[in-house]
Amino acid sequence: MIGRLNHVAIAVPDLKAAAEQYATTLGAKVGAPQDEPDHGVTVVFIELPNTKIELLYPLGEDSPIKGFLEKNPAGGIHHICYEVDDILAARDRLKEQGARVLGTGEPKIGAHGKPVLFLHPKDFNGCLVELEQV
Amino acid sequence: MIGRLNHVAIAVPDLKAAAEQYATTLGAKVGAPQDEPDHGVTVVFIELPNTKIELLYPLGEDSPIKGFLEKNPAGGIHHICYEVDDILAARDRLKEQGARVLGTGEPKIGAHGKPVLFLHPKDFNGCLVELEQV
Repeated sequence: MIGRLNHVAIAVPDLKAAAEQYATTLGAKVGAPQDEPDHGVTVVFIELPNTKIELLYPLGEDSPIKGFLEKNPAGGIHHICYEVDDILAARDRLKEQGARVLGTGEPKIGAHGKPVLFLHPKDFNGCLVELEQV
Repeated sequence: MIGRLNHVAIAVPDLKAAAEQYATTLGAKVGAPQDEPDHGVTVVFIELPNTKIELLYPLGEDSPIKGFLEKNPAGGIHHICYEVDDILAARDRLKEQGARVLGTGEPKIGAHGKPVLFLHPKDFNGCLVELEQV
């Protein structure tokens, strides 16, 4: 069912410093910061040859990663995202097998403009898993 | 400098259950468990089309992930691994820029039989970063 690893998302306490570190110290291809007000984050994409790293920084008071950074002030890996062909079929299969889908269970439009769902970390070895329909 | 994302490593409290979940619930291609006594882990590789997930379970009393699972009993993302062409050149560049290399600073032979180094999570947004020479 799951396909490519679409991205690894890392919450960072200083987006400018983290982006500069990936560009300079690690020599990666780093994009410009993008505000995603609907998702409460500012994102910088790191393009690797086979996948992406997304650096996440809180945007606005209700940012979903604000609490994460309070618990992890140095930052940390926030979630991993797997691609699926059919997000509703994926959701139904997961629910049948007892996995919990976060929120209403209906896909939202994610930061890449595609339908996404998040799965409960407690059901997936402590990892927050995002599914994105591609 | 960094190339492909070689793998994302997830420490899991129950290797059999986690491998089965990736095979059945998530429908991924899952390998057989491999003991890596030199690294204190048993590993199951999940092969995605563009990268790998490594499920890690402690092997032996001195396993480097035992403490991680004590702190994170449900499991969690343990590290991410970037590929580099020349690990000594990468190390020297990182050290010049103030990043800390864990251990002696000399590459070890990793679980894939290739030279690896780990970088200090505090220097990389709370992420443990492995570099592997490919």
